Amino acid sequence: MKIAVIGTGSVGRTLTDGFRRIGHDVVIGTRDVAETRGRAEWADEAALVPFAEAGDGADLVVNATGGNVSADALAHVDLDGKVLLDVANPLDFSNGFPPTLTVKDTDSLAEQLQRAFPTARVVKSLNTVNAAVMVEPAKLPGESTMFLAGDDAEARALVRGLLTDLGWADVVEFPSLDAARGLEMWLPLWVRLMGNLGTADFNLKLVR
Amino acid sequence: MKIAVIGTGSVGRTLTDGFRRIGHDVVIGTRDVAETRGRAEWADEAALVPFAEAGDGADLVVNATGGNVSADALAHVDLDGKVLLDVANPLDFSNGFPPTLTVKDTDSLAEQLQRAFPTARVVKSLNTVNAAVMVEPAKLPGESTMFLAGDDAEARALVRGLLTDLGWADVVEFPSLDAARGLEMWLPLWVRLMGNLGTADFNLKLVR
Repeated sequence: MKIAVIGTGSVGRTLTDGFRRIGHDVVIGTRDVAETRGRAEWADEAALVPFAEAGDGADLVVNATGGNVSADALAHVDLDGKVLLDVANPLDFSNGFPPTLTVKDTDSLAEQLQRAFPTARVVKSLNTVNAAVMVEPAKLPGESTMFLAGDDAEARALVRGLLTDLGWADVVEFPSLDAARGLEMWLPLWVRLMGNLGTADFNLKLVR
Repeated sequence: MKIAVIGTGSVGRTLTDGFRRIGHDVVIGTRDVAETRGRAEWADEAALVPFAEAGDGADLVVNATGGNVSADALAHVDLDGKVLLDVANPLDFSNGFPPTLTVKDTDSLAEQLQRAFPTARVVKSLNTVNAAVMVEPAKLPGESTMFLAGDDAEARALVRGLLTDLGWADVVEFPSLDAARGLEMWLPLWVRLMGNLGTADFNLKLVR
């Protein structure tokens, strides 16, 4: 399928490589194509397109921007009727490490985006691991669990298929986007575990 | 050792049984011994003592009260110099299910208790699973992970020994009590998983 990855940071780049590996056609939306192409890591990147073109013909749009700029960035993308996979977290590093969450408990970034773009079909997933693990769960020494939350069954099924193709065998699906509150509130423990373990390459396996 | 469990709910009762199983001498602190003894499930319980006596000679005090009443209950217990194991969560069910957290992100129940009782040595652990799993990790079909956070190394070591005796083989230790923020913020995902899985008998295994 055609996937539009929004965001040119390391998450966007890693997802782009991962989605191509499993055979998808990926464009990368950026605010300023010339500026992004000027960075060494994107110099040879032909798939960069401005935000306004990124959604054209896309079967899936992926929010890989920072949580605090996601709504601003996505406002420029055509999301009408499209599945929007939100992998971002609403982290606030303004007071240093560990970050806090800009939204939590009674709301989530995913729900904020759903309200901002009501004709999009938002699915939350992949936000519980780092980018390298998102696209290659087998790099961890043992099977771990991926979560998926969204209100739209067809949108969840599309993302679930993508997860399967990426190598996620154990997927726990929530049929309601507000479960994103729980998924995002895992991050305060995740960031502390990253500090404690000295690596971002880890995940949880749900033992049940 | 002598353990004082504070709280006569199902968590307190399950912990009492579990600690006795591994050979400890347990008293259960309650606000009103006569009233508690009047309940069918505590009718034969000789170990019930009033809060004011519960800490006498205890090597470990365990907070098994509800998070929203913990500070009030513990104010009646002698905690001076004692290790206080906090297994509670600051859950607010006033708006129904799923609950929210009364404190989060920049503070935690464990830190609130440490500030309220500065001569206690607070350790956060076991709050990430239900009571049955706390005392019998082997009831799950696979090894899972327990966390432990506290500022005092000796207090952490005492609790770690207790965890080992209960059957916890994979323990991740945080040398700072503020990691309790992450441990308590796991609960919003935990309660949603309980609803989704239809059981409270589950836990996470850290795959790393």
